[in-house]
Amino acid sequence: MEFHYPNGRKYMSQPTSTKRNEKEKIISYGKRGMTLEDDLNETNLYYLSNGIAVIHKKPTPIQIVQVDYQSRSTAVIKEAYFRQASTTDYNGVCQGKYIDFEAKETQSATSFPLRNFHEHQIKHMENVVSHKGIAFVILRFVKTDEVFLVESKDLFSFWERMETGGRKSITKDEIISCGHRIEYGLHPRIDYLKVIQHLLLL
Amino acid sequence: MEFHYPNGRKYMSQPTSTKRNEKEKIISYGKRGMTLEDDLNETNLYYLSNGIAVIHKKPTPIQIVQVDYQSRSTAVIKEAYFRQASTTDYNGVCQGKYIDFEAKETQSATSFPLRNFHEHQIKHMENVVSHKGIAFVILRFVKTDEVFLVESKDLFSFWERMETGGRKSITKDEIISCGHRIEYGLHPRIDYLKVIQHLLLL
Repeated sequence: MEFHYPNGRKYMSQPTSTKRNEKEKIISYGKRGMTLEDDLNETNLYYLSNGIAVIHKKPTPIQIVQVDYQSRSTAVIKEAYFRQASTTDYNGVCQGKYIDFEAKETQSATSFPLRNFHEHQIKHMENVVSHKGIAFVILRFVKTDEVFLVESKDLFSFWERMETGGRKSITKDEIISCGHRIEYGLHPRIDYLKVIQHLLLL
Repeated sequence: MEFHYPNGRKYMSQPTSTKRNEKEKIISYGKRGMTLEDDLNETNLYYLSNGIAVIHKKPTPIQIVQVDYQSRSTAVIKEAYFRQASTTDYNGVCQGKYIDFEAKETQSATSFPLRNFHEHQIKHMENVVSHKGIAFVILRFVKTDEVFLVESKDLFSFWERMETGGRKSITKDEIISCGHRIEYGLHPRIDYLKVIQHLLLL
């Protein structure tokens, strides 16, 4: 799928990040006010309620250090730390097939920085593929609110390019040419399984 | 971010810990000193390293209320609560098939209380099965250190029996008769995929 990219936008060379602050959030999502995670949760709920697939986001991994059991009924975690995820965030089943993916956003308008992924997440997706699971990533360009699905095999080759001294990001043109654009829908909002079905992976 | 709590550690009148305290651990697991979770993590690591399957335990779901970003590099979670899991704890892929299970232990010697499971975990396993995934539970009797795999279809009928006014547990005899005993091994410790393979589900 190839799309011509209307580059009439103002050039932005500012740092990218996946962790969004409130201000960015308001600017980025405007009237929608939804994050990629919200959209995917809604989509997965739609898939579940309509008998299409059972796909859930995994909880954020936390290292718990101190728990207070003093209160009568509730345990309160008093000290804990975020841990790095050892797998991808989303997985589940569709038509008996194992589905596994990671979803990331970037503020960059021109490329997707590979530092959004961790080495072990790539390794995990490689393992999934070697066990005949279906692995991919969903990438969102926040500024233009464009969403793409990139198959794991393509992600692996961009990762490999970086590992062998090449660029540390995937250019937007590369994503447009090898990825699959997902147009926003009402229900589900981000119909990524349609792409997977179209690719005859399901 | 504000601190709502004085540093509890200074005024601790009760020992705090995550889930299990040391004393319980020593009493419960005797010479082995391993929990079912430890054994399954080791087993899953064995499966992963030996190219047999990619199965991971999901992180514990936590509701984060307050995070302290004051420290230079690390965010400290200062207030959080345990949430009830909406799915099972373990899932992954083996030979392209989706694998999904829950693992539970009981101190009872004669039966396995169904309150170890939540309604939505049963519902989740029903969904998995309806999408042609493989779902089961691994049950451990702590006192005798016996481990059984019970297929989801059997669990569903015991659950159904409870829902229609029957007993709130599965008797040990029932587990022996419908379940599949898993003998401890050295590597992997709990070879549950062997049972699944034997059942021709893989």
